[in-house]
Amino acid sequence: MKLLWTIPVIFLIIANVAFASNNGNTGLDQAAQRRAANIHRMDTIILLTYVSVMVVIVVTAWAFKHYRLRFIHESGVTIMYGLLIGFVIRYFGLGLLQSQTFDVETKNKTIVKEPPDYLMLEVSPEGGSRVSFHYELIEGFFADKRKKIEQQIEQKSVFSPEVFFNMLIPPIIFNAGYSLKKRHFFRNIGSILAIVFIGTTISCFGTGCLMFVFTSIFQMGYSFKELLFFGALISATDPVTIISVFNDMNVEADLFALIFGESALNDAVAIVLSEVIENFSTSSEAITIHDFGSAIAGFGGVFFGSLMLGFGIGCMNAFLTKMTLISEHALLESSLFVLISYISFLVAEVCGLTGIVSVLFCGIAQAHYTYNNLSNESQSNTKHFFHMISFIMESFIFCYIGVSVFVTNNQRWSFSFLFFSLISITASRALFVYPLSWVLNIRRRPKIPKRYQHMILFAGLRGAMAFALAGRNTSTENRQTIFATTTAVVIVTVLVNGGLTSWMIDYLQIKHGKDAIEEGQRLEASMSCARGDSTADHDETIPVTMAPGLNPWDKAFLPRKWYHFDASFMKPLLTHATPSLEQTLPPFCLPLTRLLTSSRQRSYISDEPFNTVIQSGMSLTDGTGCTEESV
Amino acid sequence: MKLLWTIPVIFLIIANVAFASNNGNTGLDQAAQRRAANIHRMDTIILLTYVSVMVVIVVTAWAFKHYRLRFIHESGVTIMYGLLIGFVIRYFGLGLLQSQTFDVETKNKTIVKEPPDYLMLEVSPEGGSRVSFHYELIEGFFADKRKKIEQQIEQKSVFSPEVFFNMLIPPIIFNAGYSLKKRHFFRNIGSILAIVFIGTTISCFGTGCLMFVFTSIFQMGYSFKELLFFGALISATDPVTIISVFNDMNVEADLFALIFGESALNDAVAIVLSEVIENFSTSSEAITIHDFGSAIAGFGGVFFGSLMLGFGIGCMNAFLTKMTLISEHALLESSLFVLISYISFLVAEVCGLTGIVSVLFCGIAQAHYTYNNLSNESQSNTKHFFHMISFIMESFIFCYIGVSVFVTNNQRWSFSFLFFSLISITASRALFVYPLSWVLNIRRRPKIPKRYQHMILFAGLRGAMAFALAGRNTSTENRQTIFATTTAVVIVTVLVNGGLTSWMIDYLQIKHGKDAIEEGQRLEASMSCARGDSTADHDETIPVTMAPGLNPWDKAFLPRKWYHFDASFMKPLLTHATPSLEQTLPPFCLPLTRLLTSSRQRSYISDEPFNTVIQSGMSLTDGTGCTEESV
Repeated sequence: MKLLWTIPVIFLIIANVAFASNNGNTGLDQAAQRRAANIHRMDTIILLTYVSVMVVIVVTAWAFKHYRLRFIHESGVTIMYGLLIGFVIRYFGLGLLQSQTFDVETKNKTIVKEPPDYLMLEVSPEGGSRVSFHYELIEGFFADKRKKIEQQIEQKSVFSPEVFFNMLIPPIIFNAGYSLKKRHFFRNIGSILAIVFIGTTISCFGTGCLMFVFTSIFQMGYSFKELLFFGALISATDPVTIISVFNDMNVEADLFALIFGESALNDAVAIVLSEVIENFSTSSEAITIHDFGSAIAGFGGVFFGSLMLGFGIGCMNAFLTKMTLISEHALLESSLFVLISYISFLVAEVCGLTGIVSVLFCGIAQAHYTYNNLSNESQSNTKHFFHMISFIMESFIFCYIGVSVFVTNNQRWSFSFLFFSLISITASRALFVYPLSWVLNIRRRPKIPKRYQHMILFAGLRGAMAFALAGRNTSTENRQTIFATTTAVVIVTVLVNGGLTSWMIDYLQIKHGKDAIEEGQRLEASMSCARGDSTADHDETIPVTMAPGLNPWDKAFLPRKWYHFDASFMKPLLTHATPSLEQTLPPFCLPLTRLLTSSRQRSYISDEPFNTVIQSGMSLTDGTGCTEESV
Repeated sequence: MKLLWTIPVIFLIIANVAFASNNGNTGLDQAAQRRAANIHRMDTIILLTYVSVMVVIVVTAWAFKHYRLRFIHESGVTIMYGLLIGFVIRYFGLGLLQSQTFDVETKNKTIVKEPPDYLMLEVSPEGGSRVSFHYELIEGFFADKRKKIEQQIEQKSVFSPEVFFNMLIPPIIFNAGYSLKKRHFFRNIGSILAIVFIGTTISCFGTGCLMFVFTSIFQMGYSFKELLFFGALISATDPVTIISVFNDMNVEADLFALIFGESALNDAVAIVLSEVIENFSTSSEAITIHDFGSAIAGFGGVFFGSLMLGFGIGCMNAFLTKMTLISEHALLESSLFVLISYISFLVAEVCGLTGIVSVLFCGIAQAHYTYNNLSNESQSNTKHFFHMISFIMESFIFCYIGVSVFVTNNQRWSFSFLFFSLISITASRALFVYPLSWVLNIRRRPKIPKRYQHMILFAGLRGAMAFALAGRNTSTENRQTIFATTTAVVIVTVLVNGGLTSWMIDYLQIKHGKDAIEEGQRLEASMSCARGDSTADHDETIPVTMAPGLNPWDKAFLPRKWYHFDASFMKPLLTHATPSLEQTLPPFCLPLTRLLTSSRQRSYISDEPFNTVIQSGMSLTDGTGCTEESV
């Protein structure tokens, strides 16, 4: 025991001898140490603030559900918490950190026309040799005229738009696809695509032109290109807000499909439009029919490219989980599922496609095929994992949008601009909703009723996507006004439209809650009776041999072809579904089909011959039963 | 229909008129646009690279498990993948991005002694007015003498130490606490604390002194303070590596408790030590007994402060989930659980305590109390959520450590320094393991056998914590050497010690796998028979009235007191466990206890009187049955 205590004493002696010796660049060293400690403290304070607000938000959400409060929507409350936090951070100087800012100029005195990416500054520490330090242009690229002193906290509490695009939005959209009620979505796919492609374009140009008229009259000094860009980014209605507002309400499934479908898919159009508009001035000064044509081709390419990519990656994962025994290790299986779903987003972005569309369709494919191959544990894991992640991210985004009003330095407020914007976006939304519905109703059965049309107009909630697009480039003052206005439009639409949604739904006599569910079940039941299917709410594909009629959607040529292809090729290939490829494909494919049929599929088959299987309506669902439930 | 097509034509006309009008700072605008697009592309490429490697890692992990490969450990493979990726990024110029670097000097030509936090550079865009742009000192604070051109990718693929500390490590440690086999951990708590406090200190000073001797002999020019700092950070064995290497092996529970306990808790000591060492030179040049004393007081304060904080926050959440009906909404409940667990880390860091210790004990408290209050859905959700997150983070950290060897600019390699380090850390680890075990064995029953001691010495795996601590400050060349050496030590210990662990376990004849589990069950069974308990592996608290003897640990005074307090106060207060506070507290507390007893507790009680309950051994577990299983 005594021996043990002599050891530190010996150390102490050595230490004191040693400390008399050399010391390096102590000044610099300490500065670095101090700086690291300060940054760490600041980061944790900011994180703590956000996480604490999130806890309050969760408790509030619970209270709202528990006491059935309806006068304001949860996401509205979340934004208001965000505003409050932003206000406190800004005006109470919460956790301010002293920082130094130096004015610099280039060494050879050249005039800089564009800000370079990095600066290098020579520092001469006391008693040490000169060292160069690197500085990076602050992300978001903002320019402001104030001196930045003691504002590090504001910097730190600002997330880069990159974090929004790459980290926060993908899981939300994936979850939307993963828990989508596919049947209603695909039945309305024609109308959704019309609204997405034609509607968003009209909205973009309409907003741009109206804003140009307003700003020209009041001589506010905006170029048409800037306003068109604003039109493009503000035309994207946001799936995040739509999901959070409408999901609780349980409105009629077709209306939800139209509104959600629009919001999920029009991001792609908005992104392509805004990129096309940005690139106009580089090529020519006037807009020609050719530009217009190439823009339309751009939409199509990007949109369907992203769709195919996401769907393909989902199918790849289904194939992987079918053919390997990875389901023996649920942890690895779930991890693989999550990672591959995220890859569908990243690959699309790297290829210049739209990650949002890709991850949405990857989610749909995963729910349709992969889900059935997963072990029971992974099924429940992945469902809850994405549900929770998406809930947390969603709350965070709303909160952050509120905070950003007070803490970013790259927002410039112009209330007249905001006022004109609100008028323009409403007018240009009306400009496509009613004419387009009229055109669609010529051939569509059932028609889109007037109350749906009013609701679609009303449901023009903007959100994270518009916010992130606007925040990407705030280098000029006009851009900063556009960013501030976008933030305000998001807040106004979420608070006003989101808050009044339940009232509006009642006013327009749209069925919701239990009524809508019962109505849906009644319809489903009547349909499934006709095809001898008792498990109607399991969202399975519609059997090939079902009695036509009753449901007008299923008559459409393309969906019917797809259902057939899905049931006879895709499902047998990618899942353990009962009629295996050995049965559905012609006999000469046998060597290949034998390879692609799992032993689990064979064990089902041996019980009953194929013909019995394909004629009893319900057998075309996967072997494991249901594909998903609304979670 | 025709009407619809005239709209875009009208837009086209307006657009062409409008485009003839004013254009703002187009040069700057376009530069910003281009830069944002480039950054986005780069970010997604980097993310895609990492996520793709993660997919490969998961598949590899599956292959390892499936084919029972043992010659190298998974985490070793992960590091090697990381090295490969780093090599490709570095030498194949993957996705290089052209960037500009300007040399700058301060406007008023003052000599800068310490690098300021921000620089402001004036830019004069063509045809526009002058604008100032802000630049931020690159995080990690590194100084290098090379010109940074075309190296943005290397920047972007480097994560700041902040991300490590705040985002990646907490979930891993929480999961360790949440899935900890508490009984074995707490039985060995005395030995663990001795190793943590005394052992880590000896290791730190031992490494520092040995390195000082080596570097002095070879005149490498390191100050004693720097070497002591190195000793402090390299003394922290890493829970992440330990968990991943030992968890699969299922070694004897007491050995695992010792090794894991050390690794989880000594981070706190290492952090405090390194901070104390950093601050030495600011106060005085010689180390006095007073400094030494205050350092020891510092340990104690920080350590137990963090412990109490984390445990307290866990209890708070247990109380919250007990008293509210939030379990009706599993999604909100799980989210709250995750957020509050994270808060325990953040609060500790903000208060200047150690988040790692806090989050570990929060995990233990959550598993012990909160878990029992959760709905079944949330129980499974949270367990799997943390398990998956921790697996993904863990793989990512190993991979990243490998990548960092090639892509960071702030590592300077010195193979002699590395060689001396490996000798020093092994020697100073031996210097505490054997003497300390000898001292502990004087009173400890059962003793720590020699084979355990050898294994503890061998299990000195370093990991993410040392890596992150070293990466925080790389402002001088010596610091950069220390960072590089730390990275190398991590890689060497994970590859060599991690890879040879299974061989070493066999060589030392330590039971593992099924043997250890069976041995454990046999022991548990014999003990639980003695106290009439049939559900031995449920890790419940040991009943107050159990027959003493048989298990020597349970004789200790403090654990016994704690078990009693836990069973008669904490569990009834914080969970729905059967003997409620109404029964365990004296009658005069009745008004208060009535408030704190849930209706679920009452419903249990009404069935059988308290005396029966407390005497049948198993009833002191919570009402819901088991607290946790090893997942």
